[in-house]
Amino acid sequence: MASKKAPKKNAFYAQSGGVTAVINASACGVIETARKHKDKIGKVYAGRNGIIGALTEELIDTSKESTAAIKALRHTPSGAFGSCRFKLKSLEQNLAEYERLIEVFKAHNIGYFFYNGGGDSADTCFKISQLSEKMGYPVQAIHVPKTVDNDLPITDNCPGFGSVAKYIAVSTREASFDVASMCATSTKVFILEVMGRHAGWIAAAGALASTKDTEIPIVVLFPEITFDKDKFLKKVDGLVKKHGYCTVVVSEGVMGADGKFLADQGLKDAFGHAQLGGVAPVVASIIKDGLGLKYHWGVADYLQRAARHIASKTDVDMAYAMGKAAVKFALQGHNSVMPTVDRISNKPFKWKVGMAPLSKVANVEKMMPKDFITKDGFGITDKCRTYMEPLIKGEDYPPYKDGMPQYVRLKNVAVPKKLGKFDLKK
Amino acid sequence: MASKKAPKKNAFYAQSGGVTAVINASACGVIETARKHKDKIGKVYAGRNGIIGALTEELIDTSKESTAAIKALRHTPSGAFGSCRFKLKSLEQNLAEYERLIEVFKAHNIGYFFYNGGGDSADTCFKISQLSEKMGYPVQAIHVPKTVDNDLPITDNCPGFGSVAKYIAVSTREASFDVASMCATSTKVFILEVMGRHAGWIAAAGALASTKDTEIPIVVLFPEITFDKDKFLKKVDGLVKKHGYCTVVVSEGVMGADGKFLADQGLKDAFGHAQLGGVAPVVASIIKDGLGLKYHWGVADYLQRAARHIASKTDVDMAYAMGKAAVKFALQGHNSVMPTVDRISNKPFKWKVGMAPLSKVANVEKMMPKDFITKDGFGITDKCRTYMEPLIKGEDYPPYKDGMPQYVRLKNVAVPKKLGKFDLKK
Repeated sequence: MASKKAPKKNAFYAQSGGVTAVINASACGVIETARKHKDKIGKVYAGRNGIIGALTEELIDTSKESTAAIKALRHTPSGAFGSCRFKLKSLEQNLAEYERLIEVFKAHNIGYFFYNGGGDSADTCFKISQLSEKMGYPVQAIHVPKTVDNDLPITDNCPGFGSVAKYIAVSTREASFDVASMCATSTKVFILEVMGRHAGWIAAAGALASTKDTEIPIVVLFPEITFDKDKFLKKVDGLVKKHGYCTVVVSEGVMGADGKFLADQGLKDAFGHAQLGGVAPVVASIIKDGLGLKYHWGVADYLQRAARHIASKTDVDMAYAMGKAAVKFALQGHNSVMPTVDRISNKPFKWKVGMAPLSKVANVEKMMPKDFITKDGFGITDKCRTYMEPLIKGEDYPPYKDGMPQYVRLKNVAVPKKLGKFDLKK
Repeated sequence: MASKKAPKKNAFYAQSGGVTAVINASACGVIETARKHKDKIGKVYAGRNGIIGALTEELIDTSKESTAAIKALRHTPSGAFGSCRFKLKSLEQNLAEYERLIEVFKAHNIGYFFYNGGGDSADTCFKISQLSEKMGYPVQAIHVPKTVDNDLPITDNCPGFGSVAKYIAVSTREASFDVASMCATSTKVFILEVMGRHAGWIAAAGALASTKDTEIPIVVLFPEITFDKDKFLKKVDGLVKKHGYCTVVVSEGVMGADGKFLADQGLKDAFGHAQLGGVAPVVASIIKDGLGLKYHWGVADYLQRAARHIASKTDVDMAYAMGKAAVKFALQGHNSVMPTVDRISNKPFKWKVGMAPLSKVANVEKMMPKDFITKDGFGITDKCRTYMEPLIKGEDYPPYKDGMPQYVRLKNVAVPKKLGKFDLKK
């Protein structure tokens, strides 16, 4: 007779916050690695729409997905199980939520908690990691880093960022070639609005479009630098006079000296209705009024973070590695940690998986170092370039059928509920 | 002693109008084919900034470019020699321009005129093709079709369109996956503004994002269909209620019942300055005011027509073939014609090069057939899908170095001038 062992614990995995081109590659890393350790990890249950799925007991049984479907997550953008913007309050503020989580974990024998997200999610994951100590429920909570904003501390970079950076760098190069063709008789300035409300990482990627062998006049407007209209116009004017054209990459988060977002111009339409503009048309107006130059503008918005078709191979590899490492850490008995990317060297670019305690990750926002931005405030330094260039390296094309990328949609079969309803406090 | 032959004629090639991801592939086809017939064609001189280069005698000697550089044009977006927006007036209106062209052609022994552009350019090319008859100067003018707008007649499609269509289809699919992930607690509608002021071809490509194996709720707003706010809101509301989200692909040229562009809302900023908005934020406001749904919006602008990184292989092949055929036609003695794409069959997709007289091409705009748009005005029919799907088929990735696509910049060596200055009348 076989000796009786403690039943295997199941794992919970969820995606949180804005999705990316590679967050599903992390999911793939978690699920594939867990499947290789069926002796220790039972099923992987995914939260439908992030942590909300845990609170409402809306769990997805990933064991119902084929090997091929899970493998295809690696090349599928967006969040395959649904994501959410939801931050758990503190234990003191909302004990009911934590009690509910423990109830759900108990009902489904969940002993591993993998949370895939950015700063807010790291905070949620950290709180879950304390349940063992504070409420006596044994759970190992591991955070899997993800955010296009690249603002998590300790890790060299955040999976998701490399791909958005590649998209912005490639798009900026392509659009700049376009403007250069037209500038003699038509458009002289192209303005591209990119994400990054607090930190200029993504805007900085626009500057990667210009390299030694393909120089392009680019002006970057960082959220870290207060917008100075006169200085900006002088810069644009100088570049257009010298090169015939220039490209402006502007972060959505750029603010004026009044501390207000440049995008927030109190626009009204002809009927007096408030109009929801972006910052790109505002910059376009400033250029038109100040210099009279013909312009075009674009707003990348979701296209930039969903662009799996031009994902960075380095980024995909890192995203997968983070998911894989999270499971390994759990199997080693760790709790309250996050796998990190640790850079070993720049040339050649080498990195390894490291580990950071969540207490040092949660609620810490990594801004762009000051020495990554040029003195005039409109470009990136060599130091920044050395840091960023390896992150966009390599292509990792998805499979195509009839001209379209083949992204997987999972069956997302629900795990039968065992508990009563729970009302979310919004 | 060798017998004296008439000196070989040189060729003139120029790019015109808005550039595309594949217009340089046509240039590659022209130059590579001409180089193979050095017995009959001397040098290929490119016009710097289109026809303006011919008028100002700013010619580029393409024989100074290496075989590798010319080959690289095939995978380089934008117009390598510069483009322009400039339409020749009629012979009667501006005789001086034609006399100048003949003067330049004579000075540089130009007997072949290849003009790569859309409808306006076909008109210019047609006028040049009449020089022989009307002014006694022997020149063979061949138009090479190019336009993302897909509005040239006779040819099955216009090189440039297949790639912008692929970009819009892929981007719409990716952004839709993104919204689908977020819709439970956040964004429910994504709005993408695309080009096409007069014809809805590019907007229609957004609908290609949804296929039988990957259905996506998409609403297309065509410039051909008068915008009906109530009907639109009802459509969006229904899709969001059914699917949780939807994506709106809106042509920049959509007009309201008042005959005014929807984008032209007379926006004023807080200081009363006119604001230059796109149509996407207007549609976003309509959705917010009418349905209260959370939205995101993007404006693809130049990114869509410059996106060589995701060009359609079919489109690249056609663009090259059009350039090659133009030279072949010239060598066969043709004048005043344009190579065309003639579709032979849909399944399997087969096409061949045809020929159209410029008299039937110039100033004719091909709109979307009525039976390409669904009855409700928000989608494409199977007939449209059958037409468009082959055009986005196949990938043709550019080479990459350190994560960035390697696009060529030519030396663009000037041909020494032989004539005096010519003042362009704007």
